[in-house]
Amino acid sequence: MKYAVGVDYGTQSGRAVVVDCSTGDILAQSVLEYSHGVMDEFLPDGVTRLAPDWALQYPGDYIEVLEKTVPDAIKKAGINPSDVIGLGIDFTACTMIAVDEEGTPLCFKDELKGNPHAYIKLWKHHAAQKYANRLNETAVSRGEDFLSRYGGKISSEWMIPKIMQVYYEDRGVFEKTDRFMESADWVVFWMTGNERRNSCTAGYKAMWHKQKGYPSKDFFKALDSGLENLVSEKLSEDIYPLGTKAGELTEEAAKVIGLPVGTAVAVANVDAHVSMPAAGITKPGEMLMIMGTSTCHMVLGEKEEIVPGMCGVVEDGIMPGFLGYEAGQSCVGDHFEWFVENCVPGSYMDDARRRGLSIHDVLAEKAVVLKPGESGLIALDWWNGNRSVLVDADLTGMLLGCTLLTKPEEIYRALIEATAYGTRMIIETFRQNNVPVNSLYAAGGIAEKNPMMMQIYADITGMEIKIAKSDQSPALGSAMFGAVAAGAEKGGYNSIFEAAGIMGGVKDVSYKPDQKNKAIYDRLYEEYSILHDYFGKGANDVMKRLKKIKEGD
Amino acid sequence: MKYAVGVDYGTQSGRAVVVDCSTGDILAQSVLEYSHGVMDEFLPDGVTRLAPDWALQYPGDYIEVLEKTVPDAIKKAGINPSDVIGLGIDFTACTMIAVDEEGTPLCFKDELKGNPHAYIKLWKHHAAQKYANRLNETAVSRGEDFLSRYGGKISSEWMIPKIMQVYYEDRGVFEKTDRFMESADWVVFWMTGNERRNSCTAGYKAMWHKQKGYPSKDFFKALDSGLENLVSEKLSEDIYPLGTKAGELTEEAAKVIGLPVGTAVAVANVDAHVSMPAAGITKPGEMLMIMGTSTCHMVLGEKEEIVPGMCGVVEDGIMPGFLGYEAGQSCVGDHFEWFVENCVPGSYMDDARRRGLSIHDVLAEKAVVLKPGESGLIALDWWNGNRSVLVDADLTGMLLGCTLLTKPEEIYRALIEATAYGTRMIIETFRQNNVPVNSLYAAGGIAEKNPMMMQIYADITGMEIKIAKSDQSPALGSAMFGAVAAGAEKGGYNSIFEAAGIMGGVKDVSYKPDQKNKAIYDRLYEEYSILHDYFGKGANDVMKRLKKIKEGD
Repeated sequence: MKYAVGVDYGTQSGRAVVVDCSTGDILAQSVLEYSHGVMDEFLPDGVTRLAPDWALQYPGDYIEVLEKTVPDAIKKAGINPSDVIGLGIDFTACTMIAVDEEGTPLCFKDELKGNPHAYIKLWKHHAAQKYANRLNETAVSRGEDFLSRYGGKISSEWMIPKIMQVYYEDRGVFEKTDRFMESADWVVFWMTGNERRNSCTAGYKAMWHKQKGYPSKDFFKALDSGLENLVSEKLSEDIYPLGTKAGELTEEAAKVIGLPVGTAVAVANVDAHVSMPAAGITKPGEMLMIMGTSTCHMVLGEKEEIVPGMCGVVEDGIMPGFLGYEAGQSCVGDHFEWFVENCVPGSYMDDARRRGLSIHDVLAEKAVVLKPGESGLIALDWWNGNRSVLVDADLTGMLLGCTLLTKPEEIYRALIEATAYGTRMIIETFRQNNVPVNSLYAAGGIAEKNPMMMQIYADITGMEIKIAKSDQSPALGSAMFGAVAAGAEKGGYNSIFEAAGIMGGVKDVSYKPDQKNKAIYDRLYEEYSILHDYFGKGANDVMKRLKKIKEGD
Repeated sequence: MKYAVGVDYGTQSGRAVVVDCSTGDILAQSVLEYSHGVMDEFLPDGVTRLAPDWALQYPGDYIEVLEKTVPDAIKKAGINPSDVIGLGIDFTACTMIAVDEEGTPLCFKDELKGNPHAYIKLWKHHAAQKYANRLNETAVSRGEDFLSRYGGKISSEWMIPKIMQVYYEDRGVFEKTDRFMESADWVVFWMTGNERRNSCTAGYKAMWHKQKGYPSKDFFKALDSGLENLVSEKLSEDIYPLGTKAGELTEEAAKVIGLPVGTAVAVANVDAHVSMPAAGITKPGEMLMIMGTSTCHMVLGEKEEIVPGMCGVVEDGIMPGFLGYEAGQSCVGDHFEWFVENCVPGSYMDDARRRGLSIHDVLAEKAVVLKPGESGLIALDWWNGNRSVLVDADLTGMLLGCTLLTKPEEIYRALIEATAYGTRMIIETFRQNNVPVNSLYAAGGIAEKNPMMMQIYADITGMEIKIAKSDQSPALGSAMFGAVAAGAEKGGYNSIFEAAGIMGGVKDVSYKPDQKNKAIYDRLYEEYSILHDYFGKGANDVMKRLKKIKEGD
């Protein structure tokens, strides 16, 4: 028996799983919270205060995850570490790190450990917005075509705005930086001694294109003359497709992790994207939704198409050899948390307490018996703006159809339906732009725990929804890439497609559309579309004007 | 010292007040619940079941109110009954009664007391909708111009649909009915022996016009050949303007009520309309809002104008010699009750309980500190349809601008603001149609108890709002009409205008618009208007289509 290890680096903790290569079964897992967590108030010294919107991490925490969780998971699994053939990791992104010539994080150095910019900027570090704005303005004014691959807008969460922040706010750290990396790639570098940057983060977060490379020197020069040679001086054009072996565990790393020297290590990946093969997806047209506080939609394509409002299209970005398309909804589970905190009457809470249920259970119990259209309500799911397909953070939520008989569970269901209409809008937009979407898969907390919501999604999209087999899709996917890095000869696989066919897959249960419900939802989706376009495409910019008034403009 | 008595007949109870004619001060009051209340399940026999939407009353209850409350109030006031010079009453409307040649209610007769149609149909008896529909269709197809005086639609609550229901559903009762009357006029008849129908209910509820009379015989014939002579056979064209003396207490009535034989009695009135002089309003352009679960807007005009969406325009309908205009919002206080029952989280309820406050107090405390526009929210106040100016019961409520940071108190305030925008829309519509609105008055529960809401109304309308001096405006107004019926010679007044100047008036406190707030609300009202027209005037009939889907169409 051969095993692979997958390590999933989340926002608060890291998780290792040990997976049977012949089945994809997770034998054991182990989780460790980061010692420094998310630093958003102080540096580790406890006195250097961070500005608002900052979010940092400490690279040592990532090594600690390897050191503690991998041996623990192997012990729990009761296997021999020498039977582990490969290891893969996935990460949040863009979570970026500044390192010196040796690849040592700058924050490890005594002389820089008091500089906030020497630390890792976590994906949700939101202090680079003004640099993102400058980047977008410059790109628009120059007519840069890379914008169209990212729905017309580069996020402040991505690599270049974060680098720009370092450049403008701490030139000393910028000068001392030999190169900026994704933390994912840095951890792989730490394990193998090889810098093998992955095509997923390079493409989705650093605007790299397999044929065209990064944006041009002219573009960077237009941003700032000091940034003209940013790519050659501080990044790398040496990008490896997903499914590539990054290298093997060095002696030092093997000792820390408790695995054999020479264990194969895959190039790194992103938590969402790595879930695709974990759900057994190997073909174009199969869309996976990772459903949690927000939803990420991914689908493979055979040609590069420009789809309005997508988050990105990247060759080798999800699976090697294909175009990886990504879209997203910025507020899904978050809607329901907001609703429960702000809009659910005390009597419902009392009922939940008395019966030992969660308030979501009580709401779902009341909402599940409602028929489509019965409430007369319709909502626009824009409580946190709209990512795809409108790419507009200034849009806000709307609820329509209220009467004096409207009940909380009706509003709750209307919010769920609204997110499903949003997903249907994304699917139809892909289709209209020559990216087929033929089948639908879901993974993540909502897919696991909310059958009512999944049924509504099936009824509204009119598509059967299959659920990824594991509730730890990212870690499983990482282990699969580890098995691919090892190769068939060592008991792994020669490609992620092979691995996906055997180690990945879906649960037995799926959600099939009820045609009677679908017929009603088709009419409601028509209404959603009219409202979506009216409020989202400029006919009535009331939402933006209200925001301006709110901000005192 | 001379006194007048006012009796206000509400839905559940009647209230008598004793008023000092020289000041308008209420010296004492007394309330009695109707013995039979609102009959909506059974007749008094306890076995004859009523259909859904029925709501009946028993005329004996009204006499009992006179018998019990007037002597009680006089006793409490400590005055000599012989110093009472006049009496007036006001009523809910259309609350209609069927009587025989002698004016005896049919339900008093043994042979008819088991017939539901022999009883009084209360204003909120809603079982005549299909007859109202037929009436409206017939009027539209014949191009009847009376429709335009009532915002284009006759309500099922009004006189003719209720008579049609009797005609079609119990021909026996219809045949035995000598005439149909407003209960208000019947009580005056009972007291004085004179049938003196008042111009207010005749105009607003029975489609009577001072110059044109009732709709034509041709129209009634078109409704049904058996109704051709309805006006001459079952109604009366003998209508008396408000401010007229109906007669004097008969010996029998005086004995029951405990007042001197010959006490002057005014023609009856409606609770909202009688409040105008109680607030001291005597001139065109002074609008009074009666603010409770719904709001009634009244203003006097000098010429008859057709104002879109008004509820009615009636000469002598509010004050003699003027056109009385009425408009309305069907959901005001009801909004907030809905909100509190369905949308307020348990933690707010707990806070209210702990501090011994009402939940409205807690919400108001949090909402009052919000600045206009701060929440980014805007709502359409159509939870119960829209009366004025769209006259469309199929419209529904909308809330726009929600984010993940939206708080319950922000929604609460947005609903309040929406009702104020609705009032501003009514005011502007009057102005645009040559009915000046120069000053604003308020009465009713909300005006008395909700200073935050009144300030918001002042800021949004840009008008100072004066509050009627008495929290019993209807009863005070009725007493004033009683004093007018008595006349100046007896210690009363020669006109309601004189009486209003002395007995009516406003409180010392008023609500003045804050110009900074108004400037922001002007921008928000602009947004409200765009949404109002978009959803209310046919550009997007989504609300109606959702209702059709809801109804399974």
